[in-house]
Amino acid sequence: MKKKRKSSGIIIIGNEVLSGKTLDTNSNFMCKELFNVGISCEEINSIRDNEQTIISRIINFKSKFNYVFTSGGIGPTHDDITSHCVAKAFNQKLILNKDAKERISKHYSDDILTEARLKMAYMPEKASLIDNPVSVAPGFYVENVFVFPGVPEILQIMFREFIISLDEGDRYFKRTISTNLSEGIIGGYIARIQKKFEYVEIGSYPYFKKDAFGVSLVVKGETESEVLSVCDEIFSYIKLQNGNPQIF
Amino acid sequence: MKKKRKSSGIIIIGNEVLSGKTLDTNSNFMCKELFNVGISCEEINSIRDNEQTIISRIINFKSKFNYVFTSGGIGPTHDDITSHCVAKAFNQKLILNKDAKERISKHYSDDILTEARLKMAYMPEKASLIDNPVSVAPGFYVENVFVFPGVPEILQIMFREFIISLDEGDRYFKRTISTNLSEGIIGGYIARIQKKFEYVEIGSYPYFKKDAFGVSLVVKGETESEVLSVCDEIFSYIKLQNGNPQIF
Repeated sequence: MKKKRKSSGIIIIGNEVLSGKTLDTNSNFMCKELFNVGISCEEINSIRDNEQTIISRIINFKSKFNYVFTSGGIGPTHDDITSHCVAKAFNQKLILNKDAKERISKHYSDDILTEARLKMAYMPEKASLIDNPVSVAPGFYVENVFVFPGVPEILQIMFREFIISLDEGDRYFKRTISTNLSEGIIGGYIARIQKKFEYVEIGSYPYFKKDAFGVSLVVKGETESEVLSVCDEIFSYIKLQNGNPQIF
Repeated sequence: MKKKRKSSGIIIIGNEVLSGKTLDTNSNFMCKELFNVGISCEEINSIRDNEQTIISRIINFKSKFNYVFTSGGIGPTHDDITSHCVAKAFNQKLILNKDAKERISKHYSDDILTEARLKMAYMPEKASLIDNPVSVAPGFYVENVFVFPGVPEILQIMFREFIISLDEGDRYFKRTISTNLSEGIIGGYIARIQKKFEYVEIGSYPYFKKDAFGVSLVVKGETESEVLSVCDEIFSYIKLQNGNPQIF
């Protein structure tokens, strides 16, 4: 049976990702966390620090998905324009958020509460704060758009704390079967079994290790019984083909 | 001076990226290679193995950018639907490409040229092949859309060989200045210097190491003289602030 899950989209903001300088690991982290609480991530989009691009993408995503998560562009420098863009996307003013200012002031002693640091307390007028236990400067959300920083060490702790609030206990059930047969050998069979069980999702992922290759088949579904019955069939087939199936 | 560079967009295709199972490193690899030959990557989009999504994204990207690169979904299994979608996006038929079939046949002895493997030789009718020195099954391109596999070990070798053909020698010039000052301290200055030199792009990237933190400022421009004169100013400023500037 197919449940209607909450959907989400991730927007990664920053020229450093598009020049190849920075490997984006934030979206992968968020995807894992979302998967764990049963929220489906439908799309990841990495874009430049460009006002028009960011605004139009936020407008597009917030109407398309239940939840939108952004990463990057809320720091203290000139290229941090995400808060400004979120305000524009919601037709809100960007104002000094008193609560955010207070948190930042407390963290830094007054003499180093520079103009640049204070910039991090400017948020859309109807923003609610997201706690930052690491470096204090909070994230925020407006309606269904949740704004996180780009530094992985900070994002990870913030996101892991935060995601609990969206957890409705709506887990996926998942099993993986590995085999030393190649995709080219079992691809046809897997296509047939996917057609037969349309409500589970079978992913086929070849692996190449030092002295071995084969395929990992990931079977994902709404209930344990659905997933296990499909796994049973696949397991038996691979065993018949001497494909050394392992299930985990 | 601002040159008109060739633009590009990358489409990463595969549910495994959106469930968090797989960390996408292909887009980062491609971004670096594109940067090295002076092609600007404007956008990365990771999407599901969904026919309508893939088709509409290819149509959108091919009109928006000079070059479009896709990764994933051209293997032998049921969830590999990229070739079919590229054909649809160009209103072309998906046909058995004889050259591709021949290459694949030669690689596998006839008795294991399975239906699933043969699937990899089906391509849009006007496709041209992209060599695959690793596992033979070729990528292809139609007009400005270039289709690569998802397995990083294969993609990397194919892409590095291929990108030479798009290299017009139009390099960026880039220097990085690091400092142990924080973004909060130098952010205001960097904003002013970015406004003064609008034709270079200054990126500000905080770093946190075991026992140190600070900022890397990446200055990117069209000519060496432009970039170096901006770096000189920043370097002097940071030195005055006792920020231990390093340029490389």
